[in-house]
Amino acid sequence: MKLGIDAMSGDLGSAIVVEACRSFLSKNKTDELYVVGKKEELLALESYSQVTIIDAQEVLEMTENILAIRRKKESSMVKTMMLAKNDEVDAVLSCGNTGAYYASAMLFLKRLEGIEKSCLMAMLPTYNDRGVALLDVGANSENTAEQLKSFAIMGSVYAKNVRKVSNPKVALLNIGAEHHKGDEVHQETYKLLESMQEINFIGNIEGKEILDGDVDVVVTDGFTGNVALKTIEGVAKVLVKSLKDGFMSSTRTKVGAVMAKPALKQLMNKFDTKAAGGALMIGFVKPVIKAHGSSDAIAFENAMNLAFDMVSSNVVDKMKEGLK
Amino acid sequence: MKLGIDAMSGDLGSAIVVEACRSFLSKNKTDELYVVGKKEELLALESYSQVTIIDAQEVLEMTENILAIRRKKESSMVKTMMLAKNDEVDAVLSCGNTGAYYASAMLFLKRLEGIEKSCLMAMLPTYNDRGVALLDVGANSENTAEQLKSFAIMGSVYAKNVRKVSNPKVALLNIGAEHHKGDEVHQETYKLLESMQEINFIGNIEGKEILDGDVDVVVTDGFTGNVALKTIEGVAKVLVKSLKDGFMSSTRTKVGAVMAKPALKQLMNKFDTKAAGGALMIGFVKPVIKAHGSSDAIAFENAMNLAFDMVSSNVVDKMKEGLK
Repeated sequence: MKLGIDAMSGDLGSAIVVEACRSFLSKNKTDELYVVGKKEELLALESYSQVTIIDAQEVLEMTENILAIRRKKESSMVKTMMLAKNDEVDAVLSCGNTGAYYASAMLFLKRLEGIEKSCLMAMLPTYNDRGVALLDVGANSENTAEQLKSFAIMGSVYAKNVRKVSNPKVALLNIGAEHHKGDEVHQETYKLLESMQEINFIGNIEGKEILDGDVDVVVTDGFTGNVALKTIEGVAKVLVKSLKDGFMSSTRTKVGAVMAKPALKQLMNKFDTKAAGGALMIGFVKPVIKAHGSSDAIAFENAMNLAFDMVSSNVVDKMKEGLK
Repeated sequence: MKLGIDAMSGDLGSAIVVEACRSFLSKNKTDELYVVGKKEELLALESYSQVTIIDAQEVLEMTENILAIRRKKESSMVKTMMLAKNDEVDAVLSCGNTGAYYASAMLFLKRLEGIEKSCLMAMLPTYNDRGVALLDVGANSENTAEQLKSFAIMGSVYAKNVRKVSNPKVALLNIGAEHHKGDEVHQETYKLLESMQEINFIGNIEGKEILDGDVDVVVTDGFTGNVALKTIEGVAKVLVKSLKDGFMSSTRTKVGAVMAKPALKQLMNKFDTKAAGGALMIGFVKPVIKAHGSSDAIAFENAMNLAFDMVSSNVVDKMKEGLK
């Protein structure tokens, strides 16, 4: 197996990627890494026989417009994607600018046959630690029922093959449980999903149920999914910030916070979105993995393991099969 | 001023409404309450000269289908709404079944001139304690740009007159800050809102910013707003549950939790949705206030105060004015 790795585009630069690659290689002695970036920053990887270093002197910045991918042909991100396009690697990873990365996949990679729209899938932590896949979280600003159906198939194949869930439960995000809820697209999607033998459709769920962990895959259009994902992030941020303010408000609460620290740490770990290994851009002929922009070495190695699992479980071929 | 009060339909029955009315009357000596419910449960209010008791022996249950409003003409909810229809009161309140209450407003009350669609507005607590109005949170399953424009006007009038915010900031919930983000309806809405002198439109905001409190009114279609509102509720519920689990996991964390209790209590109070006084059904010729289903006497009295503020600030007439 060959993994293509953009070493430059994350918030923390190449150091965390180098560290993640070394740790990955210490456990995996057979698969190859194609690491793309400023070669002078990747010297520590030179001695590994499994590593091919590809020099790329440009970096696509986090704040750059997605159109920069057309101009920055020598950037590590674009050069990594070209490896996938030219069939030199089996999957690609980056912790760079999501919009630019997605746009470069759209521009350079083919979509799976039968896929009108690719999409972005996020793995979210849940109360019961099972995790849930939410898709589309924002690759599209609107979707048809047929497109949502293809997301449901791909999400289900992913849960079954990569997450190893037998008969994964698939739900449609809607504004009520009954089949007639929502706008026309959602009503039609409900009917389509209900009629499918291939997936285990359990009906509509509401926003308040996403993180319960009772379902494995939540299907939604890119507009709603993006609002839901970002709302989850926002609420978590505001609640944690407010809790910290409260702890700092008196000596008593400060002491209490110190005592309760293991509980707080457990909460942070449970809902650490970085640990989930990043988002996936799906519907393409190769796995395209997006690690969190602020990934540390552990998070990036998790994303590498996810890429490994996706390639070794042959998930893209199985999605193709499921879409027929 | 005359307020019409459904005394029966909440989770906690008539007792909390009776208590709220007594407390309200102890502070307000001039305005009249029309209290609708089982007269044998309202005996404690009989001696107040400001109170008119209207007997209603049926109760619309929380779990009942909204169509029950057609059958249960003798229910406290329907009879309260009829008071508004017949111009016998200036505003109505209930803590009953949201769907049925909204349906009864739709069925019996007129909409304001120029309003194609009425909607549901929620007041949400924010990090900075300013609070934010989010509308529509689910009265509609889809909306046009023109309808979103009318929601923006009504939300802004509400913030200015009831919340007393001068020049309230109005934002559109979208999947990115730029004007071209989102589907056609959202792009068109952006243009409409941008061109209006009457409101202080500050542009798009994303889901993660809703609870920051930097804007006063967030406009969205009923589908997205419902998902956002319920996602907020769900995340808060899951985080608090997980935090409690963590606190219970060892003696140390248990002691820490007891010490830190004031901080936890402060957090709960800050984000207590009941304290905000309930949701509003807007676009009708009278204020229609929906208190939380599980309201206690204090929450219900807050909702009564909100009704009072809405009538005394003449907010419905001002919305009518704004919509011209």
